[in-house]
Amino acid sequence: MRINGERLLKDLTELGQIGYRENHGVTRLALTDDDLRARAWLKERMEDAGLTVRLDPCANQIGSLPGQDSDQPVLIIGSHLDTVPEGGPYDGALGVLGGLECARTLQEEGVTLPWDLEIINFTDEEGHRYAGTLGSRAMMGLLAPAEIWKSRREDVEPIGNRLSALGLDPDRIETAQRSPDAIRGYLELHIEQGRVLETRPADVGVVTGIVGIYRYVVEVLGRANHAGTTPMAQRADALVAAAPAFHLLPEWARARSENMVATIGQIEVAPGGINIIPGLCRFSVELRSLCSRDMEGVRDRLTDWLDENVPARFETVFEKDGVTLDSNLREILHQSAVDYGLLAHSMPSGAGHDAQSFAPYVSTGMLFVPSQEGISHSPQEYSEPRWLINGVQTLLGTVLRLAAE
Amino acid sequence: MRINGERLLKDLTELGQIGYRENHGVTRLALTDDDLRARAWLKERMEDAGLTVRLDPCANQIGSLPGQDSDQPVLIIGSHLDTVPEGGPYDGALGVLGGLECARTLQEEGVTLPWDLEIINFTDEEGHRYAGTLGSRAMMGLLAPAEIWKSRREDVEPIGNRLSALGLDPDRIETAQRSPDAIRGYLELHIEQGRVLETRPADVGVVTGIVGIYRYVVEVLGRANHAGTTPMAQRADALVAAAPAFHLLPEWARARSENMVATIGQIEVAPGGINIIPGLCRFSVELRSLCSRDMEGVRDRLTDWLDENVPARFETVFEKDGVTLDSNLREILHQSAVDYGLLAHSMPSGAGHDAQSFAPYVSTGMLFVPSQEGISHSPQEYSEPRWLINGVQTLLGTVLRLAAE
Repeated sequence: MRINGERLLKDLTELGQIGYRENHGVTRLALTDDDLRARAWLKERMEDAGLTVRLDPCANQIGSLPGQDSDQPVLIIGSHLDTVPEGGPYDGALGVLGGLECARTLQEEGVTLPWDLEIINFTDEEGHRYAGTLGSRAMMGLLAPAEIWKSRREDVEPIGNRLSALGLDPDRIETAQRSPDAIRGYLELHIEQGRVLETRPADVGVVTGIVGIYRYVVEVLGRANHAGTTPMAQRADALVAAAPAFHLLPEWARARSENMVATIGQIEVAPGGINIIPGLCRFSVELRSLCSRDMEGVRDRLTDWLDENVPARFETVFEKDGVTLDSNLREILHQSAVDYGLLAHSMPSGAGHDAQSFAPYVSTGMLFVPSQEGISHSPQEYSEPRWLINGVQTLLGTVLRLAAE
Repeated sequence: MRINGERLLKDLTELGQIGYRENHGVTRLALTDDDLRARAWLKERMEDAGLTVRLDPCANQIGSLPGQDSDQPVLIIGSHLDTVPEGGPYDGALGVLGGLECARTLQEEGVTLPWDLEIINFTDEEGHRYAGTLGSRAMMGLLAPAEIWKSRREDVEPIGNRLSALGLDPDRIETAQRSPDAIRGYLELHIEQGRVLETRPADVGVVTGIVGIYRYVVEVLGRANHAGTTPMAQRADALVAAAPAFHLLPEWARARSENMVATIGQIEVAPGGINIIPGLCRFSVELRSLCSRDMEGVRDRLTDWLDENVPARFETVFEKDGVTLDSNLREILHQSAVDYGLLAHSMPSGAGHDAQSFAPYVSTGMLFVPSQEGISHSPQEYSEPRWLINGVQTLLGTVLRLAAE
């Protein structure tokens, strides 16, 4: 059974116009007018395909395709239509429209699944203005109600107000939670947003797990002073003291495991004058790995190094462990790729996704397609049409294999 | 012959109130209202002391004490009353009020010098809003007329307008230039603004020269990418690539000479997201030394290292060579300290001063007094009363020795 690749691409192109500005890519921040336009567009497409569309209390947009027995636990295919500012056309959108295309193909081929299939557009996955993976966390009971009354910027109203404006009751946000027992499985198709698949002979990636993220802020302390009048021997330069950590950290990560990454993405020195010796060097540290032990190991090497070498403050922003995805579903995703003559590569996801909310509670599978040069969250985000089609085809095959079980 | 220490300290205290705000130190930016109040206050003090006060075309405030032969080249004691924002009470002020105290003491003691003595308050030494050392450079013909029509910030009118407001003719700024032949010598007393004197047994510092300053901006180039989805082996992290330079640079400077300094005071990475691999690392490099060969040597090691190790852009902001001060005057300053039982230490000045404008053309001598903890350009700037008095006493002795030659 083959999806209609042309129809899929046409959908992606049409949706990619909503929130698009020349040279600035696609901007559909969660529940802004552009996101609402995308939701209206999707509702129409879903209804054209015979799906029943509803909003749950967290504004997750759910299109249901009834199966033979609606009392059976449902299969969910989910992702999101919201984007970062100046994002690309595929991050999130591919997963939702890929699910829609699977539902349409099943309808056209006269296949009724044994159970209901839900295609879900989750609210605020990106978290640019709000907390992120909001809708999927609400569905799995992982959302603290207070989170919907916060926004990242003072001039942005809380998403609770936006939910009210849609006729939803934000005070009953917890009723968005669903029982894992009522969910057969969760599938998500997404662009890779990295270069792993592109640099291998692989058509699709079967995700083994979603990495954990440990984040820290380090402040190395020195003594600010006039750069002209303070001899080298009298200096306590915070940048010079911190500098070895900048290249040691990636060395420690590489030595620990090829599956972990360590990044210093932000750095500043104070006072910051061209002729003033830095008295403070503040930098971020981010570790990502499926394996918490690896992250703890690198974290401890860093804190040991700081203790031994420089006066510093070390602050933990958060330590969020990774999740391993369901091995049975991974196997089925692999087999489905093989069914269509595609080469599948197993790999962790270095980025967070809605699948992460489901994985601890529900059989969860995730599929990647290549991203050109690994570029995402950018107007330059691009995946070749055949890559996109391969991914949706593998997704459909997976649904069929699950139906046949 | 002894100066009146109490009177000197009272003057410094009074002047230190002009532009002072609790917890914010002293702010008298060049030719702002507070600077004009300080100038009015000084004019009165100078006239009380019997000096004739005039403004030259660059608003340099000149108090003249007539000597036996006014046709002889004059001796100048100069410094500045303008400050940086939130500065201290001594930077600049000590040199002008110290000169005034010398003139007063000579008058009281009935000494008439063989030649005129001028006490000068130079315009805009600090250069916070304008070009800096403006008045002294104008006097030595080192000021490009266009400089007075520029300011460092768009919302600040050019200093040319301020000169007009004082009744001066900015279009004739070049007439502020004086012939070096008409100047016997230039003396400047200043706080050290470093910790060299404080950490030695020394009462005053005799300045051997004013260091040159070479400034550069380096941009190390990498490839920005998502920190979660880009394995370590696929990265081109600009910060990691640049990091060795941060500790190599000070090592090279120390290896070259104990009299040179190298400083990276500014650094930024782009894009600057906590989860984005730095694609660019931009940092400032400042070298200071009396010896240009030393600065060239360290500069060349840096550019060689960049060429061999990382893709980078290297931009020269400026390369300004240092000046050596007059050896005869240095000897006299030393002897004068000895006359009063003081210990003098020879040292370069790591900061720029008005003396720098005179040194290439006129016999120039410069004297430092200690700064507590080397702090300057700060409300915490402090020098003990006896240190200040020792400096002015040595200055007076130097004038007397010159008069006796």
